[in-house]
Amino acid sequence: MMNTEKEIRSHRYCVIMCGGIGSRFWPYSRTGLPKQFIDFLGTGRSLLQMSYDRIRSVVPAENILVVTNEAYAELVRRQLPDLGDNSILLEPARRNTAPCIAWAAYHIKARDAHASIVVTPSDHLITREESFRDSIVRGFEFVESRDALLTLGIQPTRPETGYGYIQIGDEVEPGINKVKTFTEKPNVELAKVFIDTGEFFWNSGIFLWKADSIIRALHEHAPEIAQVFDRGAGHFGTASERDFIEMEFPGCMSISIDFAVMEKASNVYVETVDFGWSDLGTWSSLYDNSPRNSDGNVTQNCKVMSYDSSGNIFAVRDDKLVVVQGLNDYIVADAGDVLLICPKSEEQDIRNMVSDAKLKFGDTYL
Amino acid sequence: MMNTEKEIRSHRYCVIMCGGIGSRFWPYSRTGLPKQFIDFLGTGRSLLQMSYDRIRSVVPAENILVVTNEAYAELVRRQLPDLGDNSILLEPARRNTAPCIAWAAYHIKARDAHASIVVTPSDHLITREESFRDSIVRGFEFVESRDALLTLGIQPTRPETGYGYIQIGDEVEPGINKVKTFTEKPNVELAKVFIDTGEFFWNSGIFLWKADSIIRALHEHAPEIAQVFDRGAGHFGTASERDFIEMEFPGCMSISIDFAVMEKASNVYVETVDFGWSDLGTWSSLYDNSPRNSDGNVTQNCKVMSYDSSGNIFAVRDDKLVVVQGLNDYIVADAGDVLLICPKSEEQDIRNMVSDAKLKFGDTYL
Repeated sequence: MMNTEKEIRSHRYCVIMCGGIGSRFWPYSRTGLPKQFIDFLGTGRSLLQMSYDRIRSVVPAENILVVTNEAYAELVRRQLPDLGDNSILLEPARRNTAPCIAWAAYHIKARDAHASIVVTPSDHLITREESFRDSIVRGFEFVESRDALLTLGIQPTRPETGYGYIQIGDEVEPGINKVKTFTEKPNVELAKVFIDTGEFFWNSGIFLWKADSIIRALHEHAPEIAQVFDRGAGHFGTASERDFIEMEFPGCMSISIDFAVMEKASNVYVETVDFGWSDLGTWSSLYDNSPRNSDGNVTQNCKVMSYDSSGNIFAVRDDKLVVVQGLNDYIVADAGDVLLICPKSEEQDIRNMVSDAKLKFGDTYL
Repeated sequence: MMNTEKEIRSHRYCVIMCGGIGSRFWPYSRTGLPKQFIDFLGTGRSLLQMSYDRIRSVVPAENILVVTNEAYAELVRRQLPDLGDNSILLEPARRNTAPCIAWAAYHIKARDAHASIVVTPSDHLITREESFRDSIVRGFEFVESRDALLTLGIQPTRPETGYGYIQIGDEVEPGINKVKTFTEKPNVELAKVFIDTGEFFWNSGIFLWKADSIIRALHEHAPEIAQVFDRGAGHFGTASERDFIEMEFPGCMSISIDFAVMEKASNVYVETVDFGWSDLGTWSSLYDNSPRNSDGNVTQNCKVMSYDSSGNIFAVRDDKLVVVQGLNDYIVADAGDVLLICPKSEEQDIRNMVSDAKLKFGDTYL
């Protein structure tokens, strides 16, 4: 018996991960209101809301789950009021992506033994939504037809040193290849070589697989994590799931899914895509992805009067007026109780500033 | 019959002028809270309060008057709760210093025909209070013994181009000379010549005279103004003074006491003084007069973490944390709804920015 399109769609799930704290955008992004909850592009929708909107055309609304930290439960409910409480998984502790993805897979499988899943971060920017949708559908079809772990590789546009790279191996279907290697942040010379070969793609952090496939891979490559969730059998999807997670989740090792599974498994594939992706991981990438004023500045939620000033990014809350003269290529971020002024070229130092602020003032300004 | 010291003191009055709007310190100083009402040095007292405290040891409390704009009546009452309502003269319009000083003189004379008066701005800094007190007492004694208009001339310490200068003529008593010329803001070459001659002093805007003497001088040199207040005879010090002023004050010409009287009269003297004066008229003078952090920055009401940054002045309300890297010799002024960033060396452009902000946004950010 042929499955109808609707039946096929009904087994497709999306897991949106949004537990990060976004410290690289401090103080604009704060522990209390991280990056993914901010309307970064001034569109009226936060990055999380844009992620939700984007996946709605691929996956039924009731199959969209959000995994976040307990601290952000209210923020998620407010920003995504259509989500049922059963669709919000609240992590009692931060344990990186592998335990998060494992929990979501066990949870979904308990509900639907034939589930396939796309896992996506919530804080990325994707500009070509139609191309995104086609890529996700194509990815679902691929993983539903075999035992595969699929990652989306972004066509690189510059020798970026802040991303992970995926080297492609043999093509198995048009646009889908075996993965040859994963490489974490290369230096700029290596990144240039990567680009020139045409074999390397940026690791997007967007994954597709059947619930079955990822659970099998966890058993094989991260058994410590799989064992934790195996003990939860009978709890997932029931009233006792919450208690089980409160008790057991904090005991999981903290590790990314890339290290725990993707770099070890042999059934890993990459779908090469090009849908206008940016991880908005740095002020500079935000600057590059935002519309500029006629004077070459980027403004976030504020009015700017600039004189002899360009190349700046002004991220200022509450519709404030910024008046600036003789300032070029700076980040000016104002979060009400903290004002940061730093050259764009030195933004890697912001992490140290956050550490210093924590040492000096505790959690007050985090 | 000899007058006792107490009797002499009882005829001494002080007029503190505090109607200015302080636009040079925008946006830290705002139309709604001008410079003189701000605790600029973080001492717990505003510049106005410091002016009041300073004169209290020279003049009886009940003889201290404040002249301000109607808009600031509440601010004055809150900051100087000991002032009676009869001691606050509220100007219904801004008309520069001559009408302000004229009104105060007529008002005081109606109360005390033998009054002598010191007139002082409210937004200056004076660091050596004892020397200030001695200078004022000396000035009172001088003007009480003759028909004289006395101005205080500050020993200059640098070829400042933003001040007016007074050239001294013959000495009439130790430390008190006839005035030879008044010169408005000279260029830097001329200012250097002024300093070298030893004959030039900064015009402090602090004046002493008998009420009689200034009223006589107004009749002679600014009869249009004197006529207005002559019509008020019988109103000053009574319940109808307010109505009279509301009706007549706005019709006065707007002119400074320097132009209207001091530069024309022949009985003008200068007492040369040296009591640690600054007009705090510019961000740079505020920087020069404020204690610096170990990194060479000046902070107003905020905490600063600075990296590779010095020579800046941070004037930020509400105990905000400022984190700054790679910024040197800037003004960073944050007033809640406006943030200004401008090189110290270009602060003369701030006036234009205020004008632009008014054109673009009306009075919202003034």
